[in-house]
Amino acid sequence: MSLVRAHNIGISLDGFATGEGQSLETPFGHAGVRLMKWAFPTATFQALSGARERAEVDPASEPDDVFVRRAWEGIGAEIMGANKFGPPGWQSDADWTGWWGEEPPFRTPTYVLTHQPRASIEMKGGTTFHFRDAPIEEVLAEAQEAADGQDVRLGGGPSSIRDHLAAGLVDHLHVAVTPIILGRGVRLWDGLEAVENDYTVESTTTPSGVTHVTFDRKQG
Amino acid sequence: MSLVRAHNIGISLDGFATGEGQSLETPFGHAGVRLMKWAFPTATFQALSGARERAEVDPASEPDDVFVRRAWEGIGAEIMGANKFGPPGWQSDADWTGWWGEEPPFRTPTYVLTHQPRASIEMKGGTTFHFRDAPIEEVLAEAQEAADGQDVRLGGGPSSIRDHLAAGLVDHLHVAVTPIILGRGVRLWDGLEAVENDYTVESTTTPSGVTHVTFDRKQG
Repeated sequence: MSLVRAHNIGISLDGFATGEGQSLETPFGHAGVRLMKWAFPTATFQALSGARERAEVDPASEPDDVFVRRAWEGIGAEIMGANKFGPPGWQSDADWTGWWGEEPPFRTPTYVLTHQPRASIEMKGGTTFHFRDAPIEEVLAEAQEAADGQDVRLGGGPSSIRDHLAAGLVDHLHVAVTPIILGRGVRLWDGLEAVENDYTVESTTTPSGVTHVTFDRKQG
Repeated sequence: MSLVRAHNIGISLDGFATGEGQSLETPFGHAGVRLMKWAFPTATFQALSGARERAEVDPASEPDDVFVRRAWEGIGAEIMGANKFGPPGWQSDADWTGWWGEEPPFRTPTYVLTHQPRASIEMKGGTTFHFRDAPIEEVLAEAQEAADGQDVRLGGGPSSIRDHLAAGLVDHLHVAVTPIILGRGVRLWDGLEAVENDYTVESTTTPSGVTHVTFDRKQG
């Protein structure tokens, strides 16, 4: 069965998954890289083409890397929200092809949810961006078909993850809580009261100080 | 030096410290006991007079008990907000003496912040409730005097903790994150953006699934 999975969604202790004021210069708004900094020294992150934050691999980051690398296993297609693909207004820039350079790390069909779709873009290395203005259930069905027996990853941003959770479409969710108070931005959990009832939940704190929380859908 | 400490403040993954709809029957609103259930099987909780939730002590709860019992060490006075002392409207009930029966667990002078103060109440076992309608700095100064060299504990609720944090009055804060999405209620962190900058922060997940996060004020 093809599962729907979201991984490495960084949130603050007050539940924000991205900051306020997203732009070309500040893709995560005032949050900067604070919610994902824990991932930078992991082997998997550094091995990704398109990783914009270069750092030395730190062997002490292995417990975090367990979570980072899972995200890349068994994925046959990706879905992302418009806010992940580019800064506000990218739809008006015909040359915008995402944040990840010529060879994005996805290497699968990648569906971008947007109300202003454009023609598909084939990138180097196996990533093809498709732009869809359709209900999330419909885009998911298309992505699952394209994944050809493998899983579909939800890449974010938070609003897109939240919509899929609210619709009961998510089988696995991994959030990484960084103990900072972000104060403002986009909240991951709004409208998801008691969503944990459908999931088996596990928490693990790593030496980096991040708490990884996983949600696995209970078998009906 | 007399420190100001808050311990065992239960919060949800979305940052709520109590639920919506607090009343005599539901002191924590729709949250029920979900944010503190982890503490019930600890030895310290069960030993407290006034503990309203009786349970067997579970030896596996020892890692949680490390945090629970710290709250009771070296405390010479307590401060609590009006919402902790009683359900909405307790100020109109002349006979209300708190949730904790004849012998509350505090056993120190205990200052209740309220805009409708009344005469002090001496309870069994060393707890005396004093009611104060004054700025938090002033009440804290009085409590520190009364603590006679020991520390002052902030007992909650969340609005009272938040006020003290915002005023820079807190030396140690311990929150216990239960991985549920409460969805509504009173948020602990509102207005506290970047408060972690003044603290050394540590996170620990215990077998109960709770993540304990401690904030210790950096030495200037």
